[in-house]
Amino acid sequence: MKRRIIEILRNGQSDESVTVQGWVRTKRDLKGFAFVEVNDGSSLASLQAVLKAEMPDYEATLKQINTGASVEISGVLVPSQGKGQRIELQAETVKVFGDADPETYPLQKKRHSFEFLRTIGHLRSRTNSLGAVFRVRNACATAIHQFFQERSFLWVHTPVITRNDCEGAGELFTVTSLDLKKIPQTENGKIDYSQDFFGGQAFLTVSGQLEAEVMAMAFSNVYTFGPTFRAENSNTSRHLAEFWMVEPEMAFCDLVGNMDLAEAFLKHIFKYVLETCPEDMKFFNQRIDDSVLATADNIINNQFERITYTEAIAQLEKATKTFEYPVEWGLDLQSEHERYLAEELFKKPVIVTDYPKQIKAFYMRVNDDDKTVRAMDVLAPKIGEIIGGSQREERLEVLEKRMQAQDINPDDLWWYLDLRRYGTVPHAGFGLGFERLVQFMTGMGNIRDVIPFPRAPLSAEF
Amino acid sequence: MKRRIIEILRNGQSDESVTVQGWVRTKRDLKGFAFVEVNDGSSLASLQAVLKAEMPDYEATLKQINTGASVEISGVLVPSQGKGQRIELQAETVKVFGDADPETYPLQKKRHSFEFLRTIGHLRSRTNSLGAVFRVRNACATAIHQFFQERSFLWVHTPVITRNDCEGAGELFTVTSLDLKKIPQTENGKIDYSQDFFGGQAFLTVSGQLEAEVMAMAFSNVYTFGPTFRAENSNTSRHLAEFWMVEPEMAFCDLVGNMDLAEAFLKHIFKYVLETCPEDMKFFNQRIDDSVLATADNIINNQFERITYTEAIAQLEKATKTFEYPVEWGLDLQSEHERYLAEELFKKPVIVTDYPKQIKAFYMRVNDDDKTVRAMDVLAPKIGEIIGGSQREERLEVLEKRMQAQDINPDDLWWYLDLRRYGTVPHAGFGLGFERLVQFMTGMGNIRDVIPFPRAPLSAEF
Repeated sequence: MKRRIIEILRNGQSDESVTVQGWVRTKRDLKGFAFVEVNDGSSLASLQAVLKAEMPDYEATLKQINTGASVEISGVLVPSQGKGQRIELQAETVKVFGDADPETYPLQKKRHSFEFLRTIGHLRSRTNSLGAVFRVRNACATAIHQFFQERSFLWVHTPVITRNDCEGAGELFTVTSLDLKKIPQTENGKIDYSQDFFGGQAFLTVSGQLEAEVMAMAFSNVYTFGPTFRAENSNTSRHLAEFWMVEPEMAFCDLVGNMDLAEAFLKHIFKYVLETCPEDMKFFNQRIDDSVLATADNIINNQFERITYTEAIAQLEKATKTFEYPVEWGLDLQSEHERYLAEELFKKPVIVTDYPKQIKAFYMRVNDDDKTVRAMDVLAPKIGEIIGGSQREERLEVLEKRMQAQDINPDDLWWYLDLRRYGTVPHAGFGLGFERLVQFMTGMGNIRDVIPFPRAPLSAEF
Repeated sequence: MKRRIIEILRNGQSDESVTVQGWVRTKRDLKGFAFVEVNDGSSLASLQAVLKAEMPDYEATLKQINTGASVEISGVLVPSQGKGQRIELQAETVKVFGDADPETYPLQKKRHSFEFLRTIGHLRSRTNSLGAVFRVRNACATAIHQFFQERSFLWVHTPVITRNDCEGAGELFTVTSLDLKKIPQTENGKIDYSQDFFGGQAFLTVSGQLEAEVMAMAFSNVYTFGPTFRAENSNTSRHLAEFWMVEPEMAFCDLVGNMDLAEAFLKHIFKYVLETCPEDMKFFNQRIDDSVLATADNIINNQFERITYTEAIAQLEKATKTFEYPVEWGLDLQSEHERYLAEELFKKPVIVTDYPKQIKAFYMRVNDDDKTVRAMDVLAPKIGEIIGGSQREERLEVLEKRMQAQDINPDDLWWYLDLRRYGTVPHAGFGLGFERLVQFMTGMGNIRDVIPFPRAPLSAEF
């Protein structure tokens, strides 16, 4: 019976007849028999198959079986004599689908750098580390859907292509169907976007939040989970030009409800991944970052600290540590400040709220002090900001004033303002950068190694 | 206790104290009391609240409560005296968050055309029909993830931005960070894409299939579920410029396995939606298309017919019906042919396989006859093609020959060919247009009414 290798490793019993299909990781050719490790991507560990010289075509088969070859092996499970595995497969028949020339196949047994693996993005998922990353990535995504669906949130698909350029969250990619060799112009020498596909200038979205608010005003609780874009020329280990974002939005919800949801959300994801991918998580702790399991434990078992920005500034001013960037009420917190709060001061996740309104977006609800807004950032040990959110400004006049102050034309967002004109309600939401979460979870140093096909400056191969 | 309205309607008991939050759908002001229908988006049906004149501020409150106003009502559940509902809410306190001026709020009680509702895309989800559509859309999406996760398929995120323009699936949107007013040129007068963000010309993806194949060659079973794009100037009720697509890909799988999966997949989704959204589905059957429930039943309870393209042509030639488009071996099937097969001849879903290689993509596996390929289209009554897929060509030499025949430069897809060089395996997959599925499920006539923010020629508002 055809079985996935993870099931065999977890539950396979002696004397069971099984067939596995996968790719050869290693071969050890001993006298009269050979050990072949087969992996089908279902688990970190491979299944050891034992091939005996008595098999038909033993020599010819063995010659074809090199690292990377694809095989189907049928046989019987037996307790393993060797160390490192409970059970192994006594092969009866072996079929080779495709070989892999050891002279040219780039993934030989030795360890490769992540830099090198990025140059073979079409093959790198066949390694232990990238394999584990993408299984954990899938588990994170599944945990996210499960969390929201159990709470009756609707998954809403907000648009990738947008004509809204006023959120000011960074540089935008242009989307066009115009022929770049013959850009049409209007009489006064401007680009004639009326001839473009959408009849106007169009961009790739930087956030689905405003559209999610539209949907929350009909369904109460919704979330987005889709790709978002930044055309920033940031060639760093923490930036991608294309990344996935999760953005829940809740009607009839204030900042406290928002904090409660964010905390329950992170705890749920970590628990789910530890339960469903224990081997992969152990691997990251051993090979990538030995604080990964402790961090997960910290998230799951601590009540998150909640302090205001003003309190945070006071704490940072009291700190004996010297910071590179200045600490001063009115300035944004830098990564070093965030990490100090989470790692050194509280030693657990911290939610900082009520930031100065000058440094936050126009849609965040203004507090009665008229100086701060109902913003929140969730700061985690080892990574800094993992979630950013706010209660939204539901009062039409206040929102219009904030837009004017930030030079946003209310006419461009007439539909967004309509949500405050007709049945406005207190509401709140947050955003989680999905790749940051996977990086956090796995301890991977470079964000390009937690997304299958990373997009970055000068880099969009595969 | 705060409750969602769907829970109250399904399980609420007399004498329970509850608080609901939502938007007013209608108000009937009678002598000494008023009926107010409140909807929170969790269900098609609203909860009827009874407000009595004895309430504090009764007159003032009632004046504020118009269609579209947002309210919080606390009270006690009682059996309803009227028809149409089992239970109603005897209001004790009413809080109005935001009103909605009856003079300007566009969604008054009367029925609106879908065309009109598209012009108020930020409010249309508050209607019965669009509300039902987006709940069913969410249920379809959840069913899809559940189906694949239960079978240990990994959800893989394939890129939206791609430099691969050679799949030939239609016109492409360009993605650029160049200033369209100053497009840089090379010495020989061509556009200098080396100065663009990705160092080359980039597009919005038309399919994640090729990248999904990369991932299937490492994890065996994967699926994509993400946005895809077409810059075709098709202003029809069946086309979108931005739509979501589901594309499973399976290693060690042939066309039979592919057909089995597609059939189980569709059955699962329909079953799940009927179970989780029975009221919404009944609504579509009553108000939108009275064949919706019968079609769902047909999908769930019939074994799909499986015939080859050659057999299908023979059947169409035998048909007494006259077709607009010619029926001839070598020509593609038109919608009228597909619907004849599914609706009239077999009266159930039909999977047509083994199409002429000339009319199908280069990556489909060539049969031994060298005339046909292992393609499959799933045709459903009322809609025609709902799924298209194939077994992929795993033989390097055959694939290269097919690429040459279709003028595709193998150098552009070196990484795709590498999958056949190193550990190639028989594999197969298919694509499902997600909005087509939701249209099919709900009977909605225009595809722009099954996606929250439709993108089409000259149309990308909100």
